[in-house]
Amino acid sequence: MRKFDQYLAIVNDAIGKIKEHYPMQPERLYHPVYYTMSLGGKRLRPVLMLMACEAVGGKAGDALMPAVGLELFHNFTLLHDDLMDRADVRRGRATVWRRWNENVAILSGDAMLTMATQYIARASEKVLAPVMELYNKTAMEIYEGQQWDMDFEDRNDVKVEEYLEMIRLKTSVLLGCACKMGAIVGGASQAVAADFYRMGVNVGLAFQLQDDVLDVWGDPATFGKEIGGDIMNNKKTFLLISAMNLATGNDAEQLRYWLEKEDADPALKIPAVRGIYEKLGLREMSEQYIATYSNHALETLNAMRIDSDAAQAFNDLIVKLIKRDR
Amino acid sequence: MRKFDQYLAIVNDAIGKIKEHYPMQPERLYHPVYYTMSLGGKRLRPVLMLMACEAVGGKAGDALMPAVGLELFHNFTLLHDDLMDRADVRRGRATVWRRWNENVAILSGDAMLTMATQYIARASEKVLAPVMELYNKTAMEIYEGQQWDMDFEDRNDVKVEEYLEMIRLKTSVLLGCACKMGAIVGGASQAVAADFYRMGVNVGLAFQLQDDVLDVWGDPATFGKEIGGDIMNNKKTFLLISAMNLATGNDAEQLRYWLEKEDADPALKIPAVRGIYEKLGLREMSEQYIATYSNHALETLNAMRIDSDAAQAFNDLIVKLIKRDR
Repeated sequence: MRKFDQYLAIVNDAIGKIKEHYPMQPERLYHPVYYTMSLGGKRLRPVLMLMACEAVGGKAGDALMPAVGLELFHNFTLLHDDLMDRADVRRGRATVWRRWNENVAILSGDAMLTMATQYIARASEKVLAPVMELYNKTAMEIYEGQQWDMDFEDRNDVKVEEYLEMIRLKTSVLLGCACKMGAIVGGASQAVAADFYRMGVNVGLAFQLQDDVLDVWGDPATFGKEIGGDIMNNKKTFLLISAMNLATGNDAEQLRYWLEKEDADPALKIPAVRGIYEKLGLREMSEQYIATYSNHALETLNAMRIDSDAAQAFNDLIVKLIKRDR
Repeated sequence: MRKFDQYLAIVNDAIGKIKEHYPMQPERLYHPVYYTMSLGGKRLRPVLMLMACEAVGGKAGDALMPAVGLELFHNFTLLHDDLMDRADVRRGRATVWRRWNENVAILSGDAMLTMATQYIARASEKVLAPVMELYNKTAMEIYEGQQWDMDFEDRNDVKVEEYLEMIRLKTSVLLGCACKMGAIVGGASQAVAADFYRMGVNVGLAFQLQDDVLDVWGDPATFGKEIGGDIMNNKKTFLLISAMNLATGNDAEQLRYWLEKEDADPALKIPAVRGIYEKLGLREMSEQYIATYSNHALETLNAMRIDSDAAQAFNDLIVKLIKRDR
C-alpha cells in the first residue's frame, strides 16, 4: 500500500497528460479545460479511488483512467457552478467564465463532462457496466444537490435535515462514488463496494461540515480562502440554517439585521454573526456532527475485511481530512 | 423491415416514458428536460438507429434505449445552443433559458447530457465499450463544431471548406453516429458499421445544406420557421460564406451594406441578399453540393450488403429528407 503522496504523484502525472489525448483546437473549447485542470486541488477523489482499488487487492493502474475521469467530472461541476454562482475566483485564479466568457464556460464545461465520461469508459470491459451506472447515478445526484442549493437561496425555512441531504447529494456522494468505483475496479464484492461507498459518503459529510466551520473559525494564515466569505454572502450553510432555526429574541433580530443589511462592513458583520453562532453553541454542535460522521466512516472502515496496511492508510487520511485547517 | 412511421411510434412511446425513470424533484432540474422532450421533432436520429439495427439483422428493441439516449443528447445540444445563441423560440415554444432562466438551462442541460449517457449505457454489455466510444467521440466533435460556429461569427474570412468541416462536426457526425451505433448494436462487422457511418454523415451534410437553402428559398406556407431568418441574422451559412468569397464590385458592396446595416427592414434586406445569392449562382451551386452528398450516401447504401427491403427503406428516407420542403 502506497502513501497518499505517492498516489497523488501518479494522479497528477496522468492529469498532466490529458492534453496529449485531445486537440489544441478550437482553442476556446479545449484551453479552458487544460487551464482548469492546471489549477491544482487536493485530488482527493482520484487518490481515494486508487487507494480503494489497491485496498481490495486490485492494481492502481487499472483504476487510473477512471480516477482521472472523476477528477475531470469534479472540475466540470466546479466550472459550471462558478458560472451559475457568478464566482470570480477559483483556487486563486480567474474562473473560466470570467477569464473567457459565459458561452466558453458553458461549452468547455460540456466538453469536460464528456471527457470525464471518456476517461471513465476506459475502465476494463468486465466492470464497465457497473462503473458507468455508478458514475451516471452519482452525476444525477450531484445536479440534484446543486439545484436544491440554488433553490434554498430563495427560501428562509430550510430545515437542517434538508441541508444535510443537499450536501450529501452535492458533495458527499462523489467521495462515496470514488471509493466504491475503486473497489469495483479492484474486483471487490458488491458488499465490500457498498461499504466503501458508505465510508466515502460519511467522510464527505464530515468534510463539508468542516468546510462550513473553517469559513467561520479557520485561521486566516492557513485557510486558503478569506475567512467569513459564507457569512458575507449569506450562504445557507449548516451554521446559518441552524441559527435561523434556533435563534430567538434579540439574537434572531440581530441575525435578521445582518442578513438584510446591504454593503455591510465585513469587520462588523463577520464577528457579529460569528458571535451569534457561538452563543447558540453551533460550533460545538457542528463538531458533534463532524465527529458522528467521521466515526461512522471509521466504524465502517474497521468492519471491512481489507488488509491492515490499507485500513491504516484510510484511517490516517480520514483523520487528517477531519482535523485539517484548510 | 418496418416503415418510418412505425419506428417513429416506437421511439415516441419510449421518449414519453423517460419521466417514469426519473424523479419529479427538484422541479427546476427535471421539468425543463421533460418540457424539452415534449416539444417533438423529427426524431430522425433514433429512427435511423433502429432502422440500421434491423437492416443488419438486429432487433430494434436492443437499440431502443441507446436510440432514446441519442435523442436526449441531440436535445441537450439544442438546449445549451439556444442559451449560447440567446434564441427565444424552439419548435414554436419558449426556449428553456427564456421560460426559466440561464442557470436552469445550464444545469438541466447538464442533467440531460448525463441522462443521455445513462440511456446509451443501457446497450448490451457485449457492445457497450464500442458504443460508448462512438458516442463520446461524436459528442466531442459536436462541441468542436459548435465552437467553430461561434468562432466564425467574429471572422469575415471563413472559407467554404472550413464551413463544410464545421457543419460536418456540428450536425452531420450525429447522423453518422446514429446509423453506426444501430449497426453496432445489431451485430454488424466493423466494415459495415463504417459504411453506415459514412452514409449517415453524407446524409447529414446534404440535410444541413438543404436547411440553408430552405431558409432562403423555402415556401413560407410549409417551412416551419420564418423565411430569411439566417439572412436577417447575418448567419454564416454556406450561402453567405460563398457570397462573401465570390461577390465582386457592386455585388460585394451591396452585400457589405446589408451585412452592416442595423435594424434593416426584412422586406428589403431579404430579397436584396437573396438576389445577390441568385446572381452568383449560389442556389444551383448549393443544389450541386446537396446532390453530391446525397449521391455519396446512396452509393454507399447501394454498395452495402444488406437486405433489399432495408436498403429500399433507407433509400426512400434519404430521398425524402433531401427533397423535403420543411
